[in-house]
Amino acid sequence: MRNLIFFFLLIGLISCNNEKTKENISKVSISNTTLERVEPLNWFIGFKDTSLQLLVKEPSIGNFTPSISYKGVSIEKVHTAKSENYLFIDLNIDSSTKPGKFDIVFTNKNGTKKTHTYELKSREKSAEEYVGFNSSDVLYLITPDRFANGDSSNDIGSKTSKINETGESVQFLKENSINRNDDYARHGGDIKGITNHLDYINTMGFTAIWSSPLLTNDMPKQSYHGYAITDLYEIDPRFGTLADYRELADKAREKGIKLIMDQVANHCGSEHWWMKDLPFKDWVNYQENFENNGNLITSNHRRTTNEDLYASKIDKKQNTDGWFVSTMPDLNQKNPFMAKYIIQNSIWWIETIGLGGIRQDTYPYPDKQFMSDWAGAIMNEYPNFSIVGEEWSYNPLLIGYWQKGANNRDGYESNLTSTMDFAMQRKVVEALNEEESWDKGLVKIYEGLANDFHYASPKDIMVFPDNHDMSRIYTQLNGDFANTQMALTTYLIMPRTPQIYYGTEILMDDFKKPGDHGLIRTDFPGGWQGDTVNAFSGKGLTSQQKEMQSFLKKFLNYRKDSKAIHEGKTVHFAPFMGTYFLFRILNDEVVVNIINKNEKPITIDLKRYVEIGLEGKTLKNIITGEQFIWGDDIELKQKGSILLTTKSKFD
Amino acid sequence: MRNLIFFFLLIGLISCNNEKTKENISKVSISNTTLERVEPLNWFIGFKDTSLQLLVKEPSIGNFTPSISYKGVSIEKVHTAKSENYLFIDLNIDSSTKPGKFDIVFTNKNGTKKTHTYELKSREKSAEEYVGFNSSDVLYLITPDRFANGDSSNDIGSKTSKINETGESVQFLKENSINRNDDYARHGGDIKGITNHLDYINTMGFTAIWSSPLLTNDMPKQSYHGYAITDLYEIDPRFGTLADYRELADKAREKGIKLIMDQVANHCGSEHWWMKDLPFKDWVNYQENFENNGNLITSNHRRTTNEDLYASKIDKKQNTDGWFVSTMPDLNQKNPFMAKYIIQNSIWWIETIGLGGIRQDTYPYPDKQFMSDWAGAIMNEYPNFSIVGEEWSYNPLLIGYWQKGANNRDGYESNLTSTMDFAMQRKVVEALNEEESWDKGLVKIYEGLANDFHYASPKDIMVFPDNHDMSRIYTQLNGDFANTQMALTTYLIMPRTPQIYYGTEILMDDFKKPGDHGLIRTDFPGGWQGDTVNAFSGKGLTSQQKEMQSFLKKFLNYRKDSKAIHEGKTVHFAPFMGTYFLFRILNDEVVVNIINKNEKPITIDLKRYVEIGLEGKTLKNIITGEQFIWGDDIELKQKGSILLTTKSKFD
Repeated sequence: MRNLIFFFLLIGLISCNNEKTKENISKVSISNTTLERVEPLNWFIGFKDTSLQLLVKEPSIGNFTPSISYKGVSIEKVHTAKSENYLFIDLNIDSSTKPGKFDIVFTNKNGTKKTHTYELKSREKSAEEYVGFNSSDVLYLITPDRFANGDSSNDIGSKTSKINETGESVQFLKENSINRNDDYARHGGDIKGITNHLDYINTMGFTAIWSSPLLTNDMPKQSYHGYAITDLYEIDPRFGTLADYRELADKAREKGIKLIMDQVANHCGSEHWWMKDLPFKDWVNYQENFENNGNLITSNHRRTTNEDLYASKIDKKQNTDGWFVSTMPDLNQKNPFMAKYIIQNSIWWIETIGLGGIRQDTYPYPDKQFMSDWAGAIMNEYPNFSIVGEEWSYNPLLIGYWQKGANNRDGYESNLTSTMDFAMQRKVVEALNEEESWDKGLVKIYEGLANDFHYASPKDIMVFPDNHDMSRIYTQLNGDFANTQMALTTYLIMPRTPQIYYGTEILMDDFKKPGDHGLIRTDFPGGWQGDTVNAFSGKGLTSQQKEMQSFLKKFLNYRKDSKAIHEGKTVHFAPFMGTYFLFRILNDEVVVNIINKNEKPITIDLKRYVEIGLEGKTLKNIITGEQFIWGDDIELKQKGSILLTTKSKFD
Repeated sequence: MRNLIFFFLLIGLISCNNEKTKENISKVSISNTTLERVEPLNWFIGFKDTSLQLLVKEPSIGNFTPSISYKGVSIEKVHTAKSENYLFIDLNIDSSTKPGKFDIVFTNKNGTKKTHTYELKSREKSAEEYVGFNSSDVLYLITPDRFANGDSSNDIGSKTSKINETGESVQFLKENSINRNDDYARHGGDIKGITNHLDYINTMGFTAIWSSPLLTNDMPKQSYHGYAITDLYEIDPRFGTLADYRELADKAREKGIKLIMDQVANHCGSEHWWMKDLPFKDWVNYQENFENNGNLITSNHRRTTNEDLYASKIDKKQNTDGWFVSTMPDLNQKNPFMAKYIIQNSIWWIETIGLGGIRQDTYPYPDKQFMSDWAGAIMNEYPNFSIVGEEWSYNPLLIGYWQKGANNRDGYESNLTSTMDFAMQRKVVEALNEEESWDKGLVKIYEGLANDFHYASPKDIMVFPDNHDMSRIYTQLNGDFANTQMALTTYLIMPRTPQIYYGTEILMDDFKKPGDHGLIRTDFPGGWQGDTVNAFSGKGLTSQQKEMQSFLKKFLNYRKDSKAIHEGKTVHFAPFMGTYFLFRILNDEVVVNIINKNEKPITIDLKRYVEIGLEGKTLKNIITGEQFIWGDDIELKQKGSILLTTKSKFD
């Protein structure tokens, strides 16, 4: 009985949602189709690369011949697939082509015709205006299901996109309930939740948002994380609509906040629509093997095979072609149609949403030559864009290998502007957790940063206290407030592009079960109606949470305008007596972060730092506003971080 | 009373030694001098670099003007020093110059003359014939005081070199006793001890000898290690004579064994002759500081300052200019006279002894531009030579930085053919000591070798199970025989130039006080008359010691002729079920090392290794000689290393 009431309630919600969707679709309209699928959903004029390859999916479409009559658009080649339900059409879009709609007419031998109206849109801004994230930014990483529920009408969601176009009936998603008591269930957070709190994010001082994937994950369970995508052209209805996503991007841009999309080129979810009817046998790696004998070959996760001169062929293949996990089929980017599909998909999202960067998941698992081509194709169209690839490695050699401009002996050029500094993430934690000794403690940061000599562009590498896949920084630092504060200032002041995971500002933790993914991605308090604690308003936060939030807010807002931190010279001094001084310098602006691990007051002679040229100058404490005249020595009264600047005015 | 008898005995020994010295000096005669010092002791014709700078030391010599009359030799410039007791004379030795002796006549304002007869020798072989060590070699590292006492007459030693020339009276060395019960005292081992056992070294399969320094260390204590040199042109009398050294080199060469000299450009011993009268104030770094206020500035040992983009000037300077330890003054290679002195000294030893390589101590401590110039000058004269620099770092970035051909972003080119792989040394130990898991155990070797993609020439990098500064490998592996065997085969088969420390072949250990330097450098049993155990003959060795000695002998002798191990392709497979397969391949020769950590028998399916192409082939066990037909699987009966080769004949 209770279920039945819930069902009717649901239908109501869905209808309501449909109305809203219709309204928004016009703003980001997609081409009209009578066919099952034509992808990309539309395209744009004015790209450097004038080619476009359409994937057409429709029963028996392989027996049809397409034709187009539109000035500037020509069909270069038509490819049938192994499945007769696909066609791949190579188009050329002449640079003189005007935006507009045209019909693609498909005719078979019997003269039967099918028509699809396709749209070429004009580009809203110049290629150069798509500016990616960089060292002037601090990214706020959000797990959208867990940040804020801005639209309760989509909590359960439905596959609604087709209703508006073809009048098909509502299809329920496979995971169609929310349960905030289950860390691995859907909690109802969505795009609107982020949009609604842009003010908070902006006021805190973050300048970019990286949300983990928002595309449909129509998987039977644990779909909340977003990395098992089942439709690469659809926003997950539980997160909202394409219009919602565009609205988020637009409103964020108004505040100077860049929106970074989390993309996954390596794999899809096992419930991806194409898995029931693959265009080619090799569309997915090892799929045949899987179908024939149920013998699933998963990746060996031996990522070093990408660089290893001595790796056996079989190990290389298994790393690249094996499935990431059993619910994530491995896409075969060596299939040229798949390659083109992924590249076009990325470009479509950049152009449709106006992205400020891409974060590419599981970077060392797809075919590496493809990944270079993919990033190259994007950077070719958007010269000021940025892309960060995720390789979870503590080895600076591998971190360096993937960045654009690496002098790799094998000649490999990734075209990636940024990679992820898991090495530095860990070094800072070790530095603070360890007792000081010759090779332990703060020297880990000092020697970690010394490795920068190897990187093509250290400041473009992304660093982070934690992320959605690892224990919260406050947990990693055993709940030590001062250590957490020192870690944060260290990540934020070093020549890097920092990323902070939502909730770090209020000391979110996973002490209950350290490292548990569901727990790491705990709901942000105040994101749900009725939450007793509200981190947006401060209501119910502990004094330590408030202190950290305020501390971070002050430093992030200073950092926002600090050219010295964005691109200044870095000078640091070998750790001494449990202290570590790191300076960032540009013209008149000198910022120093003094890390002090001593519980008892200590006085440090400042003669050693004379080369910085601060003697007699008045500096201001970025957090407290207090003045400090740089003289003979400095007394450090308590464990923690002291941030001083020569700038007299800031806020 | 006992002491007095000992004293007379001593005088007798010294006289005896003097006779021998006289006899040998003719073979490697040095120039006759009436002056206190003229260095280099002689020079050679036919170098590419025709310049020579003589250091002349003699009371008030700074007030004299030198002249030379010898066809082809001209004085380019004469430099006085801060101390009037020095002159530096720049000579040019024309390429047409003939070998021979000539007088350098020094005249002062009063017409007083002093004469020194200097010799230019002809070179014994062409520059190309000085072939350094490489991956075809296995180096035997010897601490000469601890290997074998071949000449008991020099056990106490004396400063004898001048007696023959000037008739000066015998000067006792500051440390003038031996005590084999004290790990930090002199034990009496010497050059003759090595020469006497060349057969053993050769039969074992070693192809090169690196002895720690043999030059005079006239220090009051712990002089046995050799790294506090007090005369850069003199063999420590307790080790023998220049003639002994030359004899060792000649006899080794006859057996195809290269002799590698351990040199120290960074520092000298505080009792170095020049410390009482320095030619320049800046001959030694921070010397003035030391003299003025006794405030000794030692190195901060922050070696990363060499590469670190952000290192402060003060930290850089302290690393480079600070004294290594308080008994080792830091030479200032930025003083051009010091720079020239060190370069010429190295070349003099190469040419005089006929060296097969140099090992340079404490590589990241001297001025790094000088070190590049130094190695460049040597490699310029000896194109096939080799030099290995010691940096104790576990960081592949630093290991790679120092090797010739590194693509360093700062443009630094060390000119070093080889660096030391402390990273790999440790990885192998960890791999064997750890329980197997995803990121522990054998994967440490696998991922360690994957880093080779970064190196300019992995096979020229030196690897070692241990050395004179670290715990013995058998101790590092907790006395586990099979682990020790697996470690050794791993180091010896990988694309590297391996070095084995004397005594490893008989499982020498330092369990009593792990890591204690004196203990690590324990006497080799059988090196002293009356030793109850004799590792040369096998007498008194335990069965495990004999087994290891025999095992190593077989593998080293195989390796001696194995082109596949010297320069073949490497293929390895990610560890699997506690096993790790590494193949070396060149033409028809395939060598595989199978590491197996399983205590219980295990059968491994060989299908995975099909790409090597061994199916159906007959391989031979390098140690046991047993045949194995490469088929479906292999049974590994016990923990340990299995070495198989496709070569049918070897021994």
